[in-house]
Amino acid sequence: MNTPSKLLDQGVEAFASLPGIGRKTALRLALHMLRQPKDLVSEFSHAIIQMRTDIKFCNRCHNISETELCNICSNLKRCETKIICVVEDMRDIIAIENTQQYFGSYHVLGGHISPIDGIGPSDLNINSLVERVKTEDTNEVIFALNSTMEGDTTSFYIYRRLADFDIKTSVIARGVPVGDELEYADEITLGRSLNHRTPFDQSL
Amino acid sequence: MNTPSKLLDQGVEAFASLPGIGRKTALRLALHMLRQPKDLVSEFSHAIIQMRTDIKFCNRCHNISETELCNICSNLKRCETKIICVVEDMRDIIAIENTQQYFGSYHVLGGHISPIDGIGPSDLNINSLVERVKTEDTNEVIFALNSTMEGDTTSFYIYRRLADFDIKTSVIARGVPVGDELEYADEITLGRSLNHRTPFDQSL
Repeated sequence: MNTPSKLLDQGVEAFASLPGIGRKTALRLALHMLRQPKDLVSEFSHAIIQMRTDIKFCNRCHNISETELCNICSNLKRCETKIICVVEDMRDIIAIENTQQYFGSYHVLGGHISPIDGIGPSDLNINSLVERVKTEDTNEVIFALNSTMEGDTTSFYIYRRLADFDIKTSVIARGVPVGDELEYADEITLGRSLNHRTPFDQSL
Repeated sequence: MNTPSKLLDQGVEAFASLPGIGRKTALRLALHMLRQPKDLVSEFSHAIIQMRTDIKFCNRCHNISETELCNICSNLKRCETKIICVVEDMRDIIAIENTQQYFGSYHVLGGHISPIDGIGPSDLNINSLVERVKTEDTNEVIFALNSTMEGDTTSFYIYRRLADFDIKTSVIARGVPVGDELEYADEITLGRSLNHRTPFDQSL
């Protein structure tokens, strides 16, 4: 970007370092910031620094939390189900909570195994999950990872790590989304949908 | 957004205050920041604060500049043309400079008149433009504002303010973009294109 000022270049660089923000959008954001009052801009920056330095994570499930244990882990009723749902990050917890269909606890991995980005199993919260399964009384581990190659690889890796324990492991169902038309579903999804068909009287 | 942490909420709020960034993207950006090293996050924030507090604007054309006069205004050859091109913001200067077709000076308004956003003529650098036309020897003022209702309103307002001066005023040509097919041009653009046709021997 050929801007006439190094300071502006710095600002543009900063915004362009965010995921999904290219250099044109970064310049738009930087110019927007220049038009804001100084107070607002420093509030913006401090909110982000403070978030990064002061935020805490739940000791048990690694969800973001203001206390030692997050409000899901400190809910006895949810722990009594003895079910752990493994997710990639906090957004997935929000999505699953919004369904109001799940009443167990969670375990946040913090990402997925992706050698191309240099992320191996040791960079994720997998050891602490194995530890949890070992020490806590657990019935079932549900893999609710993204339905991508990386997600599937991560599920499989954890599945192998948990093979020695006497617990159920399951994956959330893959199939044609509710409300979708068959002809628009891709063949792999539709194939899985057929293979994993549910008894009709359980399907409602 | 129902996140389990006030600090995270603050970070999400901050990102969501940027133009074109909704709450879902803001959450994605905030979680990205949480995954970055603390140094990087504080660098990010400082770059933005520093840009806002230390950046300077050209005294003459209000373009962003590291010096009192920007490099275009301090270029005597460009000032000798006695042409001022009025633009909304710095991005338009970059776009026009990239054409390598304009050799005069600029005047950055800092936006357009938009009553719905509470932006009136006094919020823009219009008085300083009138002052420039009054004190500098000027031949022509070119309006290169966006081809929107607000852009046209702003051009017209400035045109009226400059009516008493003995100068040429012009607007950049509106018409079918180079490389476009006629059938896809909207009727208003095509209509203008016809009305403002150019002699063929001047069109290349």
